[in-house]
Amino acid sequence: MTQFAAIIGGGVIGGGWVARFLLNGWNVRVFDPHEDAERKVDEILSNARNALPRLYDTPMPVEGSLTFCSTVEDAVRNADWVQESVPERLAVKHATYRAIQEHCEAGTPIGSSTSGFKPSELQTDAIRPQDILVAHPFNPVYLLPLVELVPSAVTPDAFLEEALDLLRGIGMIPLHIRHEIDAHVADRLLEAVWREALWLVRDDIATTQEIDDIIRYGFGLRWAQMGLFETYRVAGGEAGMKHFISQFGPCLEWPWSRLTDVPELTEALVEKIARQSDEQSGELSIRELERLRDDNLVGMLRALKDRDSAAGEHLNRHETVLMPLVTENNRHADPLELYDVQVLPSWIDYNGHMTEFRYLQVFADASDALLRLIGLDQEYLASGHSYYTAESHIMNRSEARVGERLSTSTQIIEADEKRLHVFHILRAPADGRVVATAEQMMLHVDSTTGKVCPALQSVMERLEPLAIAHASLPCPDVVGRYTGERKTA
Amino acid sequence: MTQFAAIIGGGVIGGGWVARFLLNGWNVRVFDPHEDAERKVDEILSNARNALPRLYDTPMPVEGSLTFCSTVEDAVRNADWVQESVPERLAVKHATYRAIQEHCEAGTPIGSSTSGFKPSELQTDAIRPQDILVAHPFNPVYLLPLVELVPSAVTPDAFLEEALDLLRGIGMIPLHIRHEIDAHVADRLLEAVWREALWLVRDDIATTQEIDDIIRYGFGLRWAQMGLFETYRVAGGEAGMKHFISQFGPCLEWPWSRLTDVPELTEALVEKIARQSDEQSGELSIRELERLRDDNLVGMLRALKDRDSAAGEHLNRHETVLMPLVTENNRHADPLELYDVQVLPSWIDYNGHMTEFRYLQVFADASDALLRLIGLDQEYLASGHSYYTAESHIMNRSEARVGERLSTSTQIIEADEKRLHVFHILRAPADGRVVATAEQMMLHVDSTTGKVCPALQSVMERLEPLAIAHASLPCPDVVGRYTGERKTA
Repeated sequence: MTQFAAIIGGGVIGGGWVARFLLNGWNVRVFDPHEDAERKVDEILSNARNALPRLYDTPMPVEGSLTFCSTVEDAVRNADWVQESVPERLAVKHATYRAIQEHCEAGTPIGSSTSGFKPSELQTDAIRPQDILVAHPFNPVYLLPLVELVPSAVTPDAFLEEALDLLRGIGMIPLHIRHEIDAHVADRLLEAVWREALWLVRDDIATTQEIDDIIRYGFGLRWAQMGLFETYRVAGGEAGMKHFISQFGPCLEWPWSRLTDVPELTEALVEKIARQSDEQSGELSIRELERLRDDNLVGMLRALKDRDSAAGEHLNRHETVLMPLVTENNRHADPLELYDVQVLPSWIDYNGHMTEFRYLQVFADASDALLRLIGLDQEYLASGHSYYTAESHIMNRSEARVGERLSTSTQIIEADEKRLHVFHILRAPADGRVVATAEQMMLHVDSTTGKVCPALQSVMERLEPLAIAHASLPCPDVVGRYTGERKTA
Repeated sequence: MTQFAAIIGGGVIGGGWVARFLLNGWNVRVFDPHEDAERKVDEILSNARNALPRLYDTPMPVEGSLTFCSTVEDAVRNADWVQESVPERLAVKHATYRAIQEHCEAGTPIGSSTSGFKPSELQTDAIRPQDILVAHPFNPVYLLPLVELVPSAVTPDAFLEEALDLLRGIGMIPLHIRHEIDAHVADRLLEAVWREALWLVRDDIATTQEIDDIIRYGFGLRWAQMGLFETYRVAGGEAGMKHFISQFGPCLEWPWSRLTDVPELTEALVEKIARQSDEQSGELSIRELERLRDDNLVGMLRALKDRDSAAGEHLNRHETVLMPLVTENNRHADPLELYDVQVLPSWIDYNGHMTEFRYLQVFADASDALLRLIGLDQEYLASGHSYYTAESHIMNRSEARVGERLSTSTQIIEADEKRLHVFHILRAPADGRVVATAEQMMLHVDSTTGKVCPALQSVMERLEPLAIAHASLPCPDVVGRYTGERKTA
């Protein structure tokens, strides 16, 4: 049965939770009295729909239903999870929990997006304190997998385990913080950097733009895939981590005094930061910045996914959860829709259009998605078997523009133990036009000898039902065409 | 004339500088009295050769020469740039500068990799203080573009500008820090995080693994492409940066007291971190971790490059500097040999071979070379005329390996005013084998309407003689083949 999440508070964070649950197939009810809440949530959802599915090489589950409610009661009744993202004022949070717990069942987990409060503070005077815990996510919630899950001393172990599982189910990485402290872990690190950055701007050592450049051209790239300690471990080299710390240690005592002091947020400092930020990013609207951010995150996460490393390893794991659903859904006679893509700036040629070899890149990715679907995983490749593309015939039908979304559909024309003959259509869903088609012949090979050999049973078991289903589809009229063939009248 | 860098100190950072200069075509001389220096530099170079070229879609310059010197004098004589990366002890640095400046010419820039000292401290008692500045890079120096360039009050403006240009020339992003302070900018931010992280480990709130996970699954991904301030600007949403700071500001006064305190690096704390780090990463050697890091960095940087965003924008800019002029080869011999290429590391797929869409990239480049040969220049394109590829049929015949040189030959099968039908063969000249073939149909179009139209006379005058000459060549037997056609016996 479809599960159902209640989202209390629909701002940037609440809206991100809506998208995360909805796109993972949950039904969602939202309560937020703000008059703009529905519009804002819709905008976040539109960003999320544009980004999250691009992380996976398999379609996402069918989206759940979204309902805006006018009372907390309507929102939380029979919820499987309640997520609270109201403003960071303890009295407001306490009142919210009372309203929630008067109407939801005992044992319903209530996660708080709080970045500062400890769970025991949230639980004070609650009807059922043990049902409330911290589930602190990171913006954009629909793309970044981390969520800090912080229980208090009264949280039952089994309850915590269920919460961890539930969050994993929507593609997140819940990190159990064992001891509650103010601001949990991530925001303490962020706060430390934020303070130091404020000093640097206040003292005119660097502008907001320069500080951002220092992060994104330097250590930010390291942290995105390894974090702090592993990066230093590598930097320490063969001498080891202990040697590295002993070297680095003495610096802690050096007179870099600003580090241990708290800057006063005067009106002048606030103005200065806002002005520098406008100069830095003001030519882009927040929506444009969000899209830029999401697009970069998708690209970097996909790069990590290709390498099965860091957050990419997690995405691959979650994909194996999503995958079987799709195989089930695809056991019928429709071309497979396995791969969507957006035209990137680097794909554009001097004619201003998507350049021809990028079409083949997309078709090759669609073929890869099909191969994964029929069981060509790391283990299969490691066993010395693979499919190689023997030939491809591409017809360019219309132009694609930068930023345009394209979707592929894949039809199996013929398949036996050695040959896999497919036909892909690349469409622009915005207007339905066909952008290009590709006919490909793939051969199953023993990759140690490079010679053609029969596919193993594990692959044939998945390939055959698809091939049989597709045999009843009409054959596209350009299959079998040769290059330059004139149309018959 | 090839420029020449002297690298004084060949550890992790010095070795990274060696690789950065060498792979960008500079000659390099190294001085490091450590007995292992040559081996360590070689290992870093091997990592760099495996990583840096994968960031570009054009070959890197021919590598410079590398020489290990037994004296500072031999290393620095006639150097265009001297980079000092000796241990962080001021007396050692001062002695090093004296040795350098006794033997290099006046005006030779000496960059220091120091992470802590101010340039004015480094310059004290130097022979030519004005030639010394801070050029603080980030590990791995061959991949991360950032370098903090910090002058002092005595640094001449023109000297600083030349240093900025020189570092840009080797693909770096030199950031001019206008006011010298202890630890410059980046390391102050890093130090702030490091202190807080030490507290968290010391107090058993989180392990090194958990802290790294929190960074790489959460804010590290944000920072790698936007940094701190722009990320918060987006998080602030429509209400703007000022609103965001006013909201965030009060937290600075909250009692997250560890943030303003300095942890004592006791033996027990050092042991604990080293042990947790071993548990986290101990199953991989430092070399393996380095390769993992480099591979992730290459992937993320390429993702940003495809989007022309953040550090990727910089890579694209540098690529236009590296891009060799395409030699137009006007030999009218049958078939035309217009385009050679080397298989880049980024062209390799999970089977360990050149991936299929890269074949079409090479064939498309060969077609472009043909089009340039028949007069399709910027002026012709600007007149609203171009050739579009209508269809392509590619046959993959054998595998290509990374680093292999490939050459194309192009035969015109048929050409009239509207159609240009060509056949390319991609060969590995080393053993003469055919790697792939492509049959392509190009159509001459009015690029404003996208409709087919006759080519202008200037093009036809060059195309016709070639087409007539090629008409006497035997037609390749796979021309006119359709996908999956069985060979006739």
